[in-house]
Amino acid sequence: MDDYPHFEIAQGVVFCPVFGRNLSLNFVAFPPNSGFPTHAHPEEQISIVREGEMEITVGDMTRMVVPGDVIVFPSDVPHSGRTFAQACRLIDIFSPPREGLREMIAGADPVRPADVDRWWRPAAEPSA
Amino acid sequence: MDDYPHFEIAQGVVFCPVFGRNLSLNFVAFPPNSGFPTHAHPEEQISIVREGEMEITVGDMTRMVVPGDVIVFPSDVPHSGRTFAQACRLIDIFSPPREGLREMIAGADPVRPADVDRWWRPAAEPSA
Repeated sequence: MDDYPHFEIAQGVVFCPVFGRNLSLNFVAFPPNSGFPTHAHPEEQISIVREGEMEITVGDMTRMVVPGDVIVFPSDVPHSGRTFAQACRLIDIFSPPREGLREMIAGADPVRPADVDRWWRPAAEPSA
Repeated sequence: MDDYPHFEIAQGVVFCPVFGRNLSLNFVAFPPNSGFPTHAHPEEQISIVREGEMEITVGDMTRMVVPGDVIVFPSDVPHSGRTFAQACRLIDIFSPPREGLREMIAGADPVRPADVDRWWRPAAEPSA
């Protein structure tokens, strides 16, 4: 995934989408004190938390999520998320592919891994 | 994902499937010197390598994959994989959901995380 284009769609918020035919992925990174506003989309989404933590709301349920947590976002259910002192890295998975992400990255500049990594303390880096 | 049922479908080969409506995940672990035989399925698959390494063949292409690698398995393309000295942990993602996995785990006993972790050296454990 390091060789794939990364796009900074807001300050420190980095998307790295991968499109298949039936499904798409997005490797996402949220810096501290960021997040995404309440929104909904017809694509089913399942997310996996890789590093850090985040407060996620799905419908009327709110939880702090940590690495290893798996979150199911059913089709058309409003959801939001925010980080606090810690950044958060997740894998978002969509089916059908979330074509809307193509528009979101269209206006964003590709960023180098170093631009992404500035949001992470060395201790939070994956061993690989 | 640690709270989700894990199933040992062969010695040391552990599946942890998660089913959505449009897509499904499978957290898989292959011990050293194991793998999966050539097979094909209509479900599109994308896999993400979490830890270790594995030799993966998709169609006529063979590659060693390492953490961070993303592998796309198009529908109906034969594929196989094998580990050598190192174990390998991956996330398999399918769309539509790979219902066939329900049969594969039907005859398997649930295993405790400790049963899974015996295949991993402490140094290979994720920091979280």
